[in-house]
Amino acid sequence: MEKQLKEEKVFKDPVHNYIHVQDEIIWSLINTHEFQRLRRIRQLGTSYLTFHGAEHSRFSHSLGVYEITRRIISQFERAEYPDWPEEERMVALCAALLHDLGHGPFSHSIEHAFQMNHEDWTCKIVLGDTEVAAVLRRLGEDFPEKVASVIRKTYEKAIVVNLVSSPLDADRMDYLLRDAYFTGVEYGTIDMDRILRMLRPYQGRIVVKESGMHAVEDYLMSRYQMYWQVYFHPVTRSSEIILRQIFRRAKELFDAGHSFRFLPDPLPGLFQRELTVQEYLLLDEALVQTAFMQWRLESDELLGQLCSCFLDRKLYKYVEVESLDMETIDDIRHAFEAAGLHPDYDLEIDFPTDLPYDVFRPDNESTEKQILLLDKHERLVEISEVSDIVRSISGLHRGKYHLYFPYEKVKAVLNRLPESIASIFIQN
Amino acid sequence: MEKQLKEEKVFKDPVHNYIHVQDEIIWSLINTHEFQRLRRIRQLGTSYLTFHGAEHSRFSHSLGVYEITRRIISQFERAEYPDWPEEERMVALCAALLHDLGHGPFSHSIEHAFQMNHEDWTCKIVLGDTEVAAVLRRLGEDFPEKVASVIRKTYEKAIVVNLVSSPLDADRMDYLLRDAYFTGVEYGTIDMDRILRMLRPYQGRIVVKESGMHAVEDYLMSRYQMYWQVYFHPVTRSSEIILRQIFRRAKELFDAGHSFRFLPDPLPGLFQRELTVQEYLLLDEALVQTAFMQWRLESDELLGQLCSCFLDRKLYKYVEVESLDMETIDDIRHAFEAAGLHPDYDLEIDFPTDLPYDVFRPDNESTEKQILLLDKHERLVEISEVSDIVRSISGLHRGKYHLYFPYEKVKAVLNRLPESIASIFIQN
Amino acid sequence: MEKQLKEEKVFKDPVHNYIHVQDEIIWSLINTHEFQRLRRIRQLGTSYLTFHGAEHSRFSHSLGVYEITRRIISQFERAEYPDWPEEERMVALCAALLHDLGHGPFSHSIEHAFQMNHEDWTCKIVLGDTEVAAVLRRLGEDFPEKVASVIRKTYEKAIVVNLVSSPLDADRMDYLLRDAYFTGVEYGTIDMDRILRMLRPYQGRIVVKESGMHAVEDYLMSRYQMYWQVYFHPVTRSSEIILRQIFRRAKELFDAGHSFRFLPDPLPGLFQRELTVQEYLLLDEALVQTAFMQWRLESDELLGQLCSCFLDRKLYKYVEVESLDMETIDDIRHAFEAAGLHPDYDLEIDFPTDLPYDVFRPDNESTEKQILLLDKHERLVEISEVSDIVRSISGLHRGKYHLYFPYEKVKAVLNRLPESIASIFIQN
Amino acid sequence: MEKQLKEEKVFKDPVHNYIHVQDEIIWSLINTHEFQRLRRIRQLGTSYLTFHGAEHSRFSHSLGVYEITRRIISQFERAEYPDWPEEERMVALCAALLHDLGHGPFSHSIEHAFQMNHEDWTCKIVLGDTEVAAVLRRLGEDFPEKVASVIRKTYEKAIVVNLVSSPLDADRMDYLLRDAYFTGVEYGTIDMDRILRMLRPYQGRIVVKESGMHAVEDYLMSRYQMYWQVYFHPVTRSSEIILRQIFRRAKELFDAGHSFRFLPDPLPGLFQRELTVQEYLLLDEALVQTAFMQWRLESDELLGQLCSCFLDRKLYKYVEVESLDMETIDDIRHAFEAAGLHPDYDLEIDFPTDLPYDVFRPDNESTEKQILLLDKHERLVEISEVSDIVRSISGLHRGKYHLYFPYEKVKAVLNRLPESIASIFIQN
Repeated sequence: MEKQLKEEKVFKDPVHNYIHVQDEIIWSLINTHEFQRLRRIRQLGTSYLTFHGAEHSRFSHSLGVYEITRRIISQFERAEYPDWPEEERMVALCAALLHDLGHGPFSHSIEHAFQMNHEDWTCKIVLGDTEVAAVLRRLGEDFPEKVASVIRKTYEKAIVVNLVSSPLDADRMDYLLRDAYFTGVEYGTIDMDRILRMLRPYQGRIVVKESGMHAVEDYLMSRYQMYWQVYFHPVTRSSEIILRQIFRRAKELFDAGHSFRFLPDPLPGLFQRELTVQEYLLLDEALVQTAFMQWRLESDELLGQLCSCFLDRKLYKYVEVESLDMETIDDIRHAFEAAGLHPDYDLEIDFPTDLPYDVFRPDNESTEKQILLLDKHERLVEISEVSDIVRSISGLHRGKYHLYFPYEKVKAVLNRLPESIASIFIQN
Repeated sequence: MEKQLKEEKVFKDPVHNYIHVQDEIIWSLINTHEFQRLRRIRQLGTSYLTFHGAEHSRFSHSLGVYEITRRIISQFERAEYPDWPEEERMVALCAALLHDLGHGPFSHSIEHAFQMNHEDWTCKIVLGDTEVAAVLRRLGEDFPEKVASVIRKTYEKAIVVNLVSSPLDADRMDYLLRDAYFTGVEYGTIDMDRILRMLRPYQGRIVVKESGMHAVEDYLMSRYQMYWQVYFHPVTRSSEIILRQIFRRAKELFDAGHSFRFLPDPLPGLFQRELTVQEYLLLDEALVQTAFMQWRLESDELLGQLCSCFLDRKLYKYVEVESLDMETIDDIRHAFEAAGLHPDYDLEIDFPTDLPYDVFRPDNESTEKQILLLDKHERLVEISEVSDIVRSISGLHRGKYHLYFPYEKVKAVLNRLPESIASIFIQN
Repeated sequence: MEKQLKEEKVFKDPVHNYIHVQDEIIWSLINTHEFQRLRRIRQLGTSYLTFHGAEHSRFSHSLGVYEITRRIISQFERAEYPDWPEEERMVALCAALLHDLGHGPFSHSIEHAFQMNHEDWTCKIVLGDTEVAAVLRRLGEDFPEKVASVIRKTYEKAIVVNLVSSPLDADRMDYLLRDAYFTGVEYGTIDMDRILRMLRPYQGRIVVKESGMHAVEDYLMSRYQMYWQVYFHPVTRSSEIILRQIFRRAKELFDAGHSFRFLPDPLPGLFQRELTVQEYLLLDEALVQTAFMQWRLESDELLGQLCSCFLDRKLYKYVEVESLDMETIDDIRHAFEAAGLHPDYDLEIDFPTDLPYDVFRPDNESTEKQILLLDKHERLVEISEVSDIVRSISGLHRGKYHLYFPYEKVKAVLNRLPESIASIFIQN
Repeated sequence: MEKQLKEEKVFKDPVHNYIHVQDEIIWSLINTHEFQRLRRIRQLGTSYLTFHGAEHSRFSHSLGVYEITRRIISQFERAEYPDWPEEERMVALCAALLHDLGHGPFSHSIEHAFQMNHEDWTCKIVLGDTEVAAVLRRLGEDFPEKVASVIRKTYEKAIVVNLVSSPLDADRMDYLLRDAYFTGVEYGTIDMDRILRMLRPYQGRIVVKESGMHAVEDYLMSRYQMYWQVYFHPVTRSSEIILRQIFRRAKELFDAGHSFRFLPDPLPGLFQRELTVQEYLLLDEALVQTAFMQWRLESDELLGQLCSCFLDRKLYKYVEVESLDMETIDDIRHAFEAAGLHPDYDLEIDFPTDLPYDVFRPDNESTEKQILLLDKHERLVEISEVSDIVRSISGLHRGKYHLYFPYEKVKAVLNRLPESIASIFIQN
């Protein structure tokens, strides 16, 4: 039973101006314990160490994704497009709002360190013994499962999945605009209103009217720039590397039976990879930062140093190299070890293919990753077939290797490294 | 010895576009442990619970205040005004950058609860055994003391104090612009460039050229609006009240010898009001939020409830009353107690005069609180003497009482309250 | 018969992002000869001589007023407020779009010089033998008359008049935002979305929900600032004075039978104040500027000089005096004449009461000029009764006299003016 | 003798916030008759018929180009780069301010119709018997010639030419930002501050520090988008075509001895292509629009119709065709003629190569058209060698043919056209 609020509620939002809540269910979801936790998870992880404005949370972003989805659906409803299944409104809105619910603190790094997956956690929270699940069940016993399957991209109505997760979805539009706003970079400006106006539900998916092609081109160019200017910024990468090393080191110590002076729940469970949903929900960036603050005083010097590096933003430096083979990497590690450096902790190599690659790449096999244009003859065409600029961008690949290392430490033993290796790290 | 950086460094800032660092000292100060801590203290305390965008930190704001000060001084230097003492540049820049260094987590609430003062702590950090102090001493043994005295407003060159702390200072200009940007409200837009162009060093203080009067009027109106729309927003006040109650309750328990399941350093010291500088620097919002998360499981039910209220944003409701005398307050407290409510924790009364009042109020006795205009005949005149609008605003006073209370709890015992009192709380 | 367009048309607008046209009638009106003429009439008359960005036309503004009205009505329709008469939609939209149709070139000055009134002309065009009238008649023979009566403020449904013309109407909201955008001043930023959300049709007029009070306060403060910073800017006033003098001089010459080297239609008709609607529609700023260009070569030196002053922006200087009585004015005029200056053309006195006064002034007698708030008990209250800031502003009155004069000319004969009078004009 | 103004003057500008004038010469140039004329020439010609906000003038743009140049030079001076010839400051500023001085009304169309060149006219005005020339001569008899040679790109110091005219010059940066601002499109946002910070005078030209590469990429992508979204917009092209036809028809009539009812100076001179500088300066868009207004009543029906089309925005429709050979064109023209249409006036074919092509295309032969990056080893490298995205864009070519025609007229004779030709024009 979908109840409307007596009076619409709004949130003032710097990106979308106002976020409008008309449904009681949405209002209740926002007010759950689990959703409010997203206020303590930053949207861009460690990017605030590069762009100090990027302190916004996944809470803000989730509201934004919900709002864009709401606007798209309102428009579909107003136009009464026959291809839009009106009964899917609440599923789509809930999935949009909750899609990031399972993110942990400093998501990418913690997922990498503990082989977790935020999507799985989102589904566990949506389906588990949680306030969110209780609210969702008001719309039917199977409603949580519907929402979870949209998030897993297995929902039977592909058009709903499309809205929330596709190369031109509400998620991506919100984060481009929001991340650009909070970092202050100019690159994320897209003509969202125009894109929204051009979206059409069509044969079970969301497509774009052909006349919106240029707005989509601009969106893809913005995304391209945001990836290289913001998301893959080497300083941010450096801070993620430190984070991963902290997690790795702490786990090593834990596994070795180290007695931590500070290890509140649910950290032991995290290290053992045995977290219940309730425990997982205790994880947030406040806890992680507090642990780091306390760990600076642990007896293990390496852990203490790494925590200080992260908290005080004493990051690793990096050098860029065009190519790097396995043999050279081995040579470097050996030379580091011989010089008294730690072959793992004092060197991290970033292979471009490790990156969470999401720049638009049309894919002939899977139409889910395609952006389809609807021409005036009602024919669908994949955008890169008609747009030169999209074709140009989508083939691009900026593959350079980055070597991250603690500058002062490496510099101190420079004369103990072979000339050929030393020269890689200390370029003048 | 003031060294310039080989190459200017910049920070991308959404408010000022770029923040320029030209001096090695400034760069070193930013990179200290103590300054980086400001990343973990929000600029607007609990305002993010009202305006979700307001997640920006005092780190960003401090950079902004520094940048505005830098621009003002550059302009004074370029114009070669004889009344600007050029040798004060570094004192002014350092004081601008560091003026908020002593802020604790959720400043206003924690200061209120533990009778602390962030300005004192700023001075202790500037003068103590800290990285900041070490950097400052590079400019002379007495340099930290100079910076501290600017912050205390006792520095002999009043013009430097003026720059950093006066009704039209770099601090206020940055926070208006920055808080408006991050909350997304429209009210904070001021023509800062014009105001800066109109500032003049004159006879030992900063004054404004008469032709800048309208820009200053607009600035004062923006400030007026920001106070009532953002800073004094009742929802924010409500969350501050919960915060204060948490601190109060935890201290009561601590004083009563309660054994906390979670009480890492420096919380015991905080409760005993015996913190060293090093301990104080461990305080940040990550720690406070983590404590709240853990305290939800304390044996004391009240503390647990209050922490949940704060973390899950279940805030107190409020009613507004035009006037309220002591007798009525006593009556309400008694009635609450009789009905099984807690006379202190279940009711908080906000007297407008308790507010950190900072709306512009010219003061004939103290020229420090005045904005002086310099007319073409080189005469100084206090702005409210010539500006009708300033005169109008500065007399205004929006004194209403707000009663904050836990809605569900009070509603549950409503029939046990006298009609006259019940009707105050449950207005239809 | 109100037909919808097969597909909505949009105009890209820098202020409202997109202007949406859904009705065939609106589309047809925009494409009439008479509406397109508004592209050749600047929105802010001579303000572009003070703020070079202010080159926008009444065409843009009219689209903006239409768009705001459309948004308000859509919202009323979506909420299904019983007090909104749905059948009035097209009347309101057409009146909003066309309300400025009768503006002449440099409206204020030409109206003053030739005692015309743009509102009368708007009605004549709406009712006359014009393309606009033909389009309107598609909705009924009496439809043009309905639209005209909204513009004349005599339409029986006062709520429609209210939408288009009241202290908080679509017209004022658009011009504040638009004029601020194009001049580049910071003052015009209002939270229009919030104001729109707070508007309610109520008992035959448009009122504001009480919770929108602060947004309205901010709107009134913005308007106050825009008046003093932009609309009444002395440099703009100076250029208007020159314009009026040109018109006055040309008419004098015409009346005296001067044979103009350039006097195309409809200028003779204008001078004789005998213009048909068709002739009036030939008047635009291109024609007026072209006439000025040609008149620089007229045999009458004064006319030539005035035209050059205007075209080359050699404006009159001004001095500000606190008070001025009739006697002094007479003395000045006599002294000017005695010194060989022209007592009328070389001196213009701007009395503040001459100004097209539109700053908000609540008026107890006429509710049309009031902004009414609707409180939660469904009571209406005039805003200045509850808002201190509105009360403060609405009483304000910045009455200073400005004397405008040709600086070089007056300076040249300074020694022939009595000391007491010379000192007024040449202040050091 | 370069005199500074006693007090800096500023212009409020919506794009650069303030435009700062410090030199008496610049102030005097702005106040000349010839420079003020630019207020009557729109920056984007007929684009206001597509984007109604685009009503800004070349006056605004010229101030903007001056301001950017001023900022670049100030920065060079502050950094004391040895490769910047400080004595060239005034030449560069004057050339930047005056570079568009010779633009006629609706530049592109009028130049095309009468084989004129605005650069030639700029030089004639700078060197002629004009107020501008008189002001410039205050800096030396040969100073006007210096300024003219910068505009002609023949000045001996190539670095000065570079500043004002190169793929990354002050002109292009201003127009991108300004045209985006006034049209309201999102595409023109570039990080100008960053680009300016990265510019370096180096070996006689302006280059970009390598770390500015991404900002330059973004600038080139913005330019690419602005070309296709704004400058080459088919509706704008259509209006330019009508304009050209008006000019062509009027000249035909003039050459045939037609007696115009309205043909004020300097139109006869324009038709005869015999204009003096003084006559040329009488040409502005007010005059052209006034002529069109009057010509609607000329006895020549075609001229009247074309003028009405332009003034009332009844533009030609267009169809896009992938390829078109000469033979087909001939066939169409013959078929048109046979069907009673005018083979020239009722059909215009836009070949992409006719476009004023200015999208970035690096050119190995001419370094003037290159953007050079300066790497940390002080080596210069052309940007497309290191930037994938620039390489991709610069090869792009969107060559489609557009056929413009009067829709109603062609539709009326459709059955008299061969099926194969009719189908080109009336696509369903």
